[in-house]
Amino acid sequence: MTEAISTDLQRQLDKRYGSGAPRAGTVGNATLEVLLRHRTVRRFLPGTIGEDELAVILAAAQSASTSANFQFTSVVVIDDPAVRARLAELAGNQQLILDAAVFVVWVADWSRNIALAREHGHTIEATSYLDSAVSSIVDVTLSAQNAAVAAESLGYGITFVGALRNNIDEVIKLLRLPEWTFPVYGLAIGIPDPEDPADVKPRYGQGVVVHRNTYTPPAEADVADYLDRINGYYREQELPEDWVKNRLAGRISTKESLHGRQGIRNTFHRQGFELR
Amino acid sequence: MTEAISTDLQRQLDKRYGSGAPRAGTVGNATLEVLLRHRTVRRFLPGTIGEDELAVILAAAQSASTSANFQFTSVVVIDDPAVRARLAELAGNQQLILDAAVFVVWVADWSRNIALAREHGHTIEATSYLDSAVSSIVDVTLSAQNAAVAAESLGYGITFVGALRNNIDEVIKLLRLPEWTFPVYGLAIGIPDPEDPADVKPRYGQGVVVHRNTYTPPAEADVADYLDRINGYYREQELPEDWVKNRLAGRISTKESLHGRQGIRNTFHRQGFELR
Repeated sequence: MTEAISTDLQRQLDKRYGSGAPRAGTVGNATLEVLLRHRTVRRFLPGTIGEDELAVILAAAQSASTSANFQFTSVVVIDDPAVRARLAELAGNQQLILDAAVFVVWVADWSRNIALAREHGHTIEATSYLDSAVSSIVDVTLSAQNAAVAAESLGYGITFVGALRNNIDEVIKLLRLPEWTFPVYGLAIGIPDPEDPADVKPRYGQGVVVHRNTYTPPAEADVADYLDRINGYYREQELPEDWVKNRLAGRISTKESLHGRQGIRNTFHRQGFELR
Repeated sequence: MTEAISTDLQRQLDKRYGSGAPRAGTVGNATLEVLLRHRTVRRFLPGTIGEDELAVILAAAQSASTSANFQFTSVVVIDDPAVRARLAELAGNQQLILDAAVFVVWVADWSRNIALAREHGHTIEATSYLDSAVSSIVDVTLSAQNAAVAAESLGYGITFVGALRNNIDEVIKLLRLPEWTFPVYGLAIGIPDPEDPADVKPRYGQGVVVHRNTYTPPAEADVADYLDRINGYYREQELPEDWVKNRLAGRISTKESLHGRQGIRNTFHRQGFELR
């Protein structure tokens, strides 16, 4: 089930994992190259996307697995500059939302299924439990990642924008999202600025992330190796080093570091999700 | 940003959307073909997966976007037949878990980051909020979908197994998952049985799912068109028709239809997630 030896795939593996990278050997194909070379692009050149490309990207999204064919995904394509500008503001003034060829908001949408079941005379009870919110977030994200991969296969760069949840109530109002829906994040798709220095970013070694049959806490040496590699990456990028202090701790130490996201539970309730 | 006209891509679009399918035109490449031809495979032939293939599939998973590089994903590869058998049982006696070439449990894992932040003397507060669970589920699912696409690009078939959450406490015990982690779902990867009749499944038309700038409820005619198409699909597959009655209502009418998943909130609490 392999196609050809790929030197490119091995290069990306080496960037992800350093000297401990797994060997691709004879494993490789065009899709794996797209998946492995992913990098987050935050600087876009001006330009638009063809409607045919967008339709195929969204068809890829709809082609992902969906729990019991429930199809919880709705997408709101933002092409009105005023709406784009307001969303950029709500997500902490992110320029990339303005510059992207297309910006799409991914919505977990129970409203269609609930309306349909009610019209057919069925009662609705299961949706008041936490699992319903979980399964719809999973569904949306399976499809959003397909859209991201599809866009990258066409040469676009992408960035997910979770910061839409910082002001989730305002986003709901702006996009007129009905009961039984909530926005999960945005996805910016654009033409990568060749000046954007972001590269394939190091990740934890597979020894840290992959377990066999039972979970094993990571070895200290493996975590230390990763901190070396990720801090080296930031140094090369001329960004502040110390991933733990500047990135991780900055996002989890205090509730203020959630930038408003500490309130999403109330929003879920208002949108109909009891999360029992 | 296109490669070649693909008749295959258009065929998959027609299967997804019927007569209202968007035109692929000149848009197409090998990755889009993999994404568009996805079908859920529930019958696997005996066989294993190469360790090099598995390592590349998991590298694809780790290459997905991850919020602030938090890398919430842990995976537990189940190759012990006894553990596999127990998981199959816990997920409602699913034969496909036994037959898959590999079965992987996807775990939302805050434990690494929390340990690291604590070791470096930082306090932890943000993790007690609902958003922390949400963002880790998103993270895991971006990477799991990459794994699914990678496996499909290599010729394997895949099925997600959300039913692992039916008995989530037993799964946690079996895999010895620590505090600040929870299993989200399983992924079966196997060699598709050519006798498995499952095909590309119809989805809602883009007119139902795709909104522009603001959300618009679907037109009745578009929903009716979809019910025709999906019921036609089940008829062809010699499966019970009436998607709304047999599939949708059966999963959301009563809390019992959650098959135990109505208890996951308690599990989240026990694992450390207050979900405030």
